Amino acid sequence: MVKVGINGYGTVGKRVADAVDQQDDMEIVGVAKRSPTYEAEIAVKKGFPFYAASDKYLDNFEEKEILVEGMLEDLLEEADIIIDGTPKKSGYKSMYEKAGVKAIWQGGEDHELTGLSFNSMANYEEALGADYLRVVSCNTTGLLRTLYPLHRDIGIDNCRAVMVRRGADPWDTSRGPINSINPVLDIPSHHGPDVQSVVPEINIQTTAVKVPTTIMHLHSNIVELEEEVDAEEVIDIWDKTPRVRFFNASQGVDSTAKIMEYAKDRDNTRGDLNEIAVWDDAIKVEGSTLYYYQAIHQESDIIPENIDAIRAMTELEEDPMKSIRRTNEAMGIE
Amino acid sequence: MVKVGINGYGTVGKRVADAVDQQDDMEIVGVAKRSPTYEAEIAVKKGFPFYAASDKYLDNFEEKEILVEGMLEDLLEEADIIIDGTPKKSGYKSMYEKAGVKAIWQGGEDHELTGLSFNSMANYEEALGADYLRVVSCNTTGLLRTLYPLHRDIGIDNCRAVMVRRGADPWDTSRGPINSINPVLDIPSHHGPDVQSVVPEINIQTTAVKVPTTIMHLHSNIVELEEEVDAEEVIDIWDKTPRVRFFNASQGVDSTAKIMEYAKDRDNTRGDLNEIAVWDDAIKVEGSTLYYYQAIHQESDIIPENIDAIRAMTELEEDPMKSIRRTNEAMGIE
Amino acid sequence: MVKVGINGYGTVGKRVADAVDQQDDMEIVGVAKRSPTYEAEIAVKKGFPFYAASDKYLDNFEEKEILVEGMLEDLLEEADIIIDGTPKKSGYKSMYEKAGVKAIWQGGEDHELTGLSFNSMANYEEALGADYLRVVSCNTTGLLRTLYPLHRDIGIDNCRAVMVRRGADPWDTSRGPINSINPVLDIPSHHGPDVQSVVPEINIQTTAVKVPTTIMHLHSNIVELEEEVDAEEVIDIWDKTPRVRFFNASQGVDSTAKIMEYAKDRDNTRGDLNEIAVWDDAIKVEGSTLYYYQAIHQESDIIPENIDAIRAMTELEEDPMKSIRRTNEAMGIE
Amino acid sequence: MVKVGINGYGTVGKRVADAVDQQDDMEIVGVAKRSPTYEAEIAVKKGFPFYAASDKYLDNFEEKEILVEGMLEDLLEEADIIIDGTPKKSGYKSMYEKAGVKAIWQGGEDHELTGLSFNSMANYEEALGADYLRVVSCNTTGLLRTLYPLHRDIGIDNCRAVMVRRGADPWDTSRGPINSINPVLDIPSHHGPDVQSVVPEINIQTTAVKVPTTIMHLHSNIVELEEEVDAEEVIDIWDKTPRVRFFNASQGVDSTAKIMEYAKDRDNTRGDLNEIAVWDDAIKVEGSTLYYYQAIHQESDIIPENIDAIRAMTELEEDPMKSIRRTNEAMGIE
Repeated sequence: MVKVGINGYGTVGKRVADAVDQQDDMEIVGVAKRSPTYEAEIAVKKGFPFYAASDKYLDNFEEKEILVEGMLEDLLEEADIIIDGTPKKSGYKSMYEKAGVKAIWQGGEDHELTGLSFNSMANYEEALGADYLRVVSCNTTGLLRTLYPLHRDIGIDNCRAVMVRRGADPWDTSRGPINSINPVLDIPSHHGPDVQSVVPEINIQTTAVKVPTTIMHLHSNIVELEEEVDAEEVIDIWDKTPRVRFFNASQGVDSTAKIMEYAKDRDNTRGDLNEIAVWDDAIKVEGSTLYYYQAIHQESDIIPENIDAIRAMTELEEDPMKSIRRTNEAMGIE
Repeated sequence: MVKVGINGYGTVGKRVADAVDQQDDMEIVGVAKRSPTYEAEIAVKKGFPFYAASDKYLDNFEEKEILVEGMLEDLLEEADIIIDGTPKKSGYKSMYEKAGVKAIWQGGEDHELTGLSFNSMANYEEALGADYLRVVSCNTTGLLRTLYPLHRDIGIDNCRAVMVRRGADPWDTSRGPINSINPVLDIPSHHGPDVQSVVPEINIQTTAVKVPTTIMHLHSNIVELEEEVDAEEVIDIWDKTPRVRFFNASQGVDSTAKIMEYAKDRDNTRGDLNEIAVWDDAIKVEGSTLYYYQAIHQESDIIPENIDAIRAMTELEEDPMKSIRRTNEAMGIE
Repeated sequence: MVKVGINGYGTVGKRVADAVDQQDDMEIVGVAKRSPTYEAEIAVKKGFPFYAASDKYLDNFEEKEILVEGMLEDLLEEADIIIDGTPKKSGYKSMYEKAGVKAIWQGGEDHELTGLSFNSMANYEEALGADYLRVVSCNTTGLLRTLYPLHRDIGIDNCRAVMVRRGADPWDTSRGPINSINPVLDIPSHHGPDVQSVVPEINIQTTAVKVPTTIMHLHSNIVELEEEVDAEEVIDIWDKTPRVRFFNASQGVDSTAKIMEYAKDRDNTRGDLNEIAVWDDAIKVEGSTLYYYQAIHQESDIIPENIDAIRAMTELEEDPMKSIRRTNEAMGIE
Repeated sequence: MVKVGINGYGTVGKRVADAVDQQDDMEIVGVAKRSPTYEAEIAVKKGFPFYAASDKYLDNFEEKEILVEGMLEDLLEEADIIIDGTPKKSGYKSMYEKAGVKAIWQGGEDHELTGLSFNSMANYEEALGADYLRVVSCNTTGLLRTLYPLHRDIGIDNCRAVMVRRGADPWDTSRGPINSINPVLDIPSHHGPDVQSVVPEINIQTTAVKVPTTIMHLHSNIVELEEEVDAEEVIDIWDKTPRVRFFNASQGVDSTAKIMEYAKDRDNTRGDLNEIAVWDDAIKVEGSTLYYYQAIHQESDIIPENIDAIRAMTELEEDPMKSIRRTNEAMGIE
């Protein structure tokens, strides 16, 4: 059993903790958190050993009767590998190095921090035995899930993606906008290079706008393929691709809100959707030009990638597809 | 085992079906629905016998390989009691009467349809053996949950509630407003009389405004009590009241969005919150005047009331508190 | 003086009325409206002769002391040309034909209704003396404003536009979505063919999503030009193009909301922006590929096109640029 | 001519500048601003002498060809009175004292800063000749506009106001919430004491929630009057009260969005509404209990109070009603 520690029990940390808990070849040895919010109470209720990431709030933990097993430093001693779910640029790397523990960061960090950016389908093998890596962001993961198999099976001449991004996560009530569309005025946006940090061969340019929703990003993508195909071939490729799920308007699913309703109705943990949603009735090919929309559940699509990354880095499993299948089965991903 | 049928598998119907399924003294004998949306596929996946509520879409069900067990009329023959989750004024009453099946409607209907409006704590006994009743709306249920115990234990001189209502349910992407506050210009609003349809003695006037959110209603209530109390007494009463849950800002829960995040983190089905949320740090008493806020999860607070109503109407249980506890335990409500 | 009548005094009608009133070669002879809302009172206050578009509410007009000069039929006798600002498919064409009055429709109608779709820069000459035409929609007008001069001066190989559309107009409090992104699942969307209804030579494909804002559409466009250019050349072309206005982040204008604030600060009528907004700091050219964002004030960009269309159809002016300049000067458009 | 300087040319500053410019007994001698955003360009275009509030951006002003007349200190020498529209707690008081210039702050400051809080109807006389005062916030101004005349003419036993507040101003695209209702958990909120900083005799308790809109605050108020009245008497009192304007649903004005549309249609500067909006069809009296809704345009209701405050402090006019009428006439307020 690989021993996993979580540093930062927020949007990512709490989800990875649950996902690790669902696997049978790894276990949570502790979660570390700074402040005594309700998430700390829930972590304890779930049976995760609780560590304080700072001594600033130790009294408050006591007050709330949250049993603190030790400090973050103690957790680093217990763990084989750490999931870093702290805010970006938190700077824990030297602490991990000192403790000699492997670590996984998230997409808020730069590629340079680890020199290795990860996506399960695209470059699992590169991560075998690695000490440090970064799981790319939710948007980049979403792009790789649908683009990588096209690149592999057909060939991509270029991809232009326009990313309509949710303004804030559902719980984040301080950030806007309330009634505005905010374009990212740096063109192309950083998401293209971020895809290339995993698969340098994919030629992609992106632009992005922020809108007043909290629930999903939506991409409108145009891909020039290297050869003429028909829509059925594309559907067939994605149908065989793990963590891509089709929706369509004839089911009544014609918006990001309906997709999230579907995920709740499926009894998914937290109502999450770990898969990338693609509307199969809106996949259109003209010659070698492919148009499609995809929707990304920003809080959860990267969670199974974190699990696969643990397996690769600790060499629990050498075959990417075996890890992907094992993760999916344990998490209820179809 | 009481045999329960569901007519209308939408926001309410699908939740009551799951809740019935969690009880051990009742079972779902079928759910009826008009159109072959993804909810139908999910009902079938969950193992609920599926009935067509109309013959209009029979071909489409077949196309989507959704096995249809029969028509709504057939379900009425199978069931002891029907949960009507159809849109308001759908007019199925005569059909139920003809089939001799008991039925429960929701708060969109008028009190007059059944002559009996229901809340588990307030008037369970009135429902014993009844053929038809209406579970009052989410807002009215929320008001009764906190007001009824004050009325019973202290006495209410009057209550003024201002209801800040979500504009649409999360899945409902056609309704607004997007950037407006819409007051209900009929003053007082209908919610006061609706409370009185269950407990006529409570003197209450309400006003309401609609705002651009999808996730919870929030009430700002001012209650003139019949005697001077302190906040601790009020907290103590509600602490003993089922289906009322305290939150506070020191936990980091200072908005309706954070409450919904809490419900997801608690692994509640669909991320629902069946309890009424009250901020205990914002309960303020001056003399005999009580101020408090409460938040109502519009999609789910009435679900346990439907279960209790089934027990009362079918006389499975005569004691309200025993039914409430049994429902809560099965549904994971604390 | 050309005599202009307005049928439908809503979002478009009231703006065209004001714009006509600002010109010195045309005048408002009357506005027709169905119901006695406050807009009717304001029309009368502004001195526009008021006509009833239906006899249904005649009593209500009287009640509110709104002087009704006559019925719509009477207005048609007075006017040389009618601006039809009624809801789409209202079907007044035969009435206009019978009265022998010229008419201009808006972008909600199909091209087929008139066989002539209009944009001031692109095809003014085609409208000279025409009896009926349609001013294309706000989005199509926006696309033509920036694409037509590129087509004319450089040549366009193809354009891919992703349109992020506001969910509802500011006053329209019934329409959503509140918290969702709704993609238009017909790909490509109808906007490309709509551009081609004016300039058939422009090769353009579009997709569109609807988001919860009320104030502007935003387009993220990628244009393959027929030759390599640099950004300065593109800026130079648009700088000379009427009704295109540059904004940039260094001015603090980095969102649709800030553009609307700018328009209010400029004391524009109703806070409108008749020009298309382009961020000059986000115009990027790589080889012959041009990327840019533009924002469209959906309520007002088509208003000056209506004025030019009146001049062309009534042959007040044969030279497009002279009409455009005259309209702009009278309306305060730079 | 009283010489007025503006320090801080944002939401309040730019509006007061325009309003001063519309009066014939005062004039703008300069506006000071820190950074060279488009507002600076517009100030210059409007002919207001421009001063730099900081030397940090002097180069940038030059770059943008914005002529800087001098520094803030120079403006203080020129002016008889300063409108402080800087962010709250900016701390300019000692600078004003040193320069010997009178000054007016806005509602973001505490009462203690000046010891004098101002509303035109309620306490104009107290401000005669004063050196420093604070115009109370938009919400407090709104409450005083409708409550003060009731207090004066009938007598108020108590008032309970629930304030549904817009989350951010229209231009402020960084603040949320996007999909949440955020209650102010301090009960009662500070608005009651703020009303009493002007009229200590008014017994008022308030609560407040923040919602995802940008355009107006809405108050749902319940007032226990000292005697029984009927709704007509209340309407009559407010009808005679300056800066209170009636709306109703029969005009089609049933939301804050429709009120803002009305203000734009009336050609109000920036689409502002300086008056408090009251729905006369929702004024309800039961015995001595009055219910009503009012809507507050947060950016502009306090602007005419600033003008009256200038007149009182500089003793241009001793009679409150004369100043109010003069301000209103110049600003086009009915």
